[in-house]
Amino acid sequence: MTNLIIGAAGMIGRKLAESLAGQPMLLADVVPPPTLPGATTLTLNLTDPATPARLLAHKPQTIYYLAAIVSGEAEADFDKGYAVNLDATRALLEEIRHTPNYHPKLIFASSAAVMGRPFPASIPDDFHTVPLTSYGTQKAIAELLINDYSRRGFIDGVSLRLPTICIRPGLPNRAASSFFSNILREPLAGQPANLPVPETTRHWFASPRAAIGFFRHAAQMDTAPLGTDRALSVPGLSATVADQLAALSRAAGPAALKLITRNPDPTVEKIVMGWALGYDATRARKLGFVADRDFDEIIAAHLADTR
Amino acid sequence: MTNLIIGAAGMIGRKLAESLAGQPMLLADVVPPPTLPGATTLTLNLTDPATPARLLAHKPQTIYYLAAIVSGEAEADFDKGYAVNLDATRALLEEIRHTPNYHPKLIFASSAAVMGRPFPASIPDDFHTVPLTSYGTQKAIAELLINDYSRRGFIDGVSLRLPTICIRPGLPNRAASSFFSNILREPLAGQPANLPVPETTRHWFASPRAAIGFFRHAAQMDTAPLGTDRALSVPGLSATVADQLAALSRAAGPAALKLITRNPDPTVEKIVMGWALGYDATRARKLGFVADRDFDEIIAAHLADTR
Repeated sequence: MTNLIIGAAGMIGRKLAESLAGQPMLLADVVPPPTLPGATTLTLNLTDPATPARLLAHKPQTIYYLAAIVSGEAEADFDKGYAVNLDATRALLEEIRHTPNYHPKLIFASSAAVMGRPFPASIPDDFHTVPLTSYGTQKAIAELLINDYSRRGFIDGVSLRLPTICIRPGLPNRAASSFFSNILREPLAGQPANLPVPETTRHWFASPRAAIGFFRHAAQMDTAPLGTDRALSVPGLSATVADQLAALSRAAGPAALKLITRNPDPTVEKIVMGWALGYDATRARKLGFVADRDFDEIIAAHLADTR
Repeated sequence: MTNLIIGAAGMIGRKLAESLAGQPMLLADVVPPPTLPGATTLTLNLTDPATPARLLAHKPQTIYYLAAIVSGEAEADFDKGYAVNLDATRALLEEIRHTPNYHPKLIFASSAAVMGRPFPASIPDDFHTVPLTSYGTQKAIAELLINDYSRRGFIDGVSLRLPTICIRPGLPNRAASSFFSNILREPLAGQPANLPVPETTRHWFASPRAAIGFFRHAAQMDTAPLGTDRALSVPGLSATVADQLAALSRAAGPAALKLITRNPDPTVEKIVMGWALGYDATRARKLGFVADRDFDEIIAAHLADTR
C-alpha cells in the first residue's frame, strides 16, 4: 500500500485519487469514496478510536490528509470541530509514532484561515498565525503538531495552506465563497448566477488542477529545505471579480455575462472583505510549487475537466 | 474563592501567592504548595481526570496558570510533555466551558520558546510561532486554544511570553540558562560560580518581581485592546553578561568578580546562541507592562527579597 487519501470522497480528494489511478492506494472517507482501479476503499468515522490502526494497517508511504470539518460547521459545532480537526489528526500522528519502522510522508491540507486580520496587502510566509475561527485554530494547531512530529523524526510532514478553490465543480453551495465559482461555472453551463459583491473585490485562488499539483509536488519533493517550518502558503492567483468576468466573456462570449444578476449581499460582502488579498508564497515558489497563470487557463481547464 | 494559582509551589507561583497573601485563594501544585494566610492548598496531579473539577469547585474569578513540564523534560519525555502542557491545559479550559455562568480571567504562563530561529535582532510582536522544541510547541498550542476560547466567550484569557527569570532564588540547577542567575546570586552570597560563555553574550531578562508584576497587571487589565490576539511578549531587559558583572561589581565590590571562574562550556554556549536577544514587546508596553530598568535594580530587589 503506497498512498492513503483521507477525505477521498471530497472534491479535491476525489480528483487527487483520479490523478493517482493505477497506483496502489487506500481511499478513506466518512462517506463511500470513489471506486478506482487499484484502489481499496474504507468508509469510516475519523473520531472512531479504531480508525488510525485501520488506516495504517498496510503502512502507506504517502498520506494525503484532506478530511476536515469545514469552517462554518466547526464554528457552529465546537465539539465536533475539535474532535475531527484536532483530536483525530493527533490520533493518527500518535498511531504513526507508535508503529515500528514507519516514517511516512504526510501532506496535510491546511488553510489560509490559520491567519487573521489585520493583513498586509501581500501576506509574507512568516506572518503570524492568529486565526479568527475555531477551524483556523484547529488547522494552526495541526500545523504545529506536524512541525513537531517531523522535527522529532516521527513523520516527514508538509502542511499546505490552500487558496480558495475555483472553479469548484458540482452544485452551488452555501459557503460564503461559493459565488466566486458560481459566477463562472453556471454561465459556462448556460445557467444564471448571482454576484453579491462589487467587481473590484480581489481574492486569492487556485484551480482544482493547481491544488492537485500542489499535493503531488509536496509528496515527491525533498523536504530538507523546509527546516523546522513545514507549513507552506502555496502560490495562488490574485484576481478581482472583474478579472474573472473578463475571462468568462473571452471564453463564452459577452452573452454569458448577461446570465449574471447583481444582487448585493452585505453579509457575504462583509465576510469576504475580511479575507486576505494574496500571499507572497515565496518559499513555496522557490520549492517548485506553481500557481495558475490566469482565469483564462482556469476556465479552459474547467471546461476540459467537465466535458 | 477569588484566585486560583496552578503551579503554586514553583518559584514564580510561590512569590505570586505571597504577593496576594490575605486575599482568598486556592494554591494548587503537584507538590505541596506553601501555606499562607487566607489560602487553601491542593496537592494533585494535573493529568488526573478529576483535577479540573476540583480546581474549579469554587469558581475562582482569576486563574493563574503557571504549571508546566519544563523544556528539557518535555523534550526527553514526549508523552509527559503533551499530557501536562497540552492535555491538562485543554481539560481545564473544557471544564470552564462546561461550568454554567462562569467566565473567569485566565492568565497563562507562556514562553519565548513559542518562537524559533532564525530571529531578527529585536523580535516583533507578530513574529511567527515556529517553535524548536516540543515544549515551545505545547505552549504555542495552548496560546491558540486560549485565543479561541476567549474569542468564543468561554474565558477572558491572556498568555504572557516571559523572558528568562533572573535572579532565580534557591540553588543552582541544571537548566542551560541557570548560569545567568548563578553568576550574580552566588557571588552576592560569597559563593563561587562559573561563567560558561563569553561576556559579550546578550540575553533577555525579567526579575522575579517584574514577572509577578506582569501576572498581577494582566489580572486587572482591560483585555478589550488585545482583540483576538491574547498572547503578549512582555517587556524584558536586554543585557549582556558584561552588563550583569558590572552591576555585580557596583553592588558587592570588585572582589565579588573574583568568585567567578570562566570555564567555557561549548554545549551551553551553543544552546544560548540559539536564543533570542530581545523582543520589541510594543503591545505589552502600550498596555502598561513595565520591564526592569537595569541589573542594578534587579540585584537590589534580589538582596531585599532574600535578606
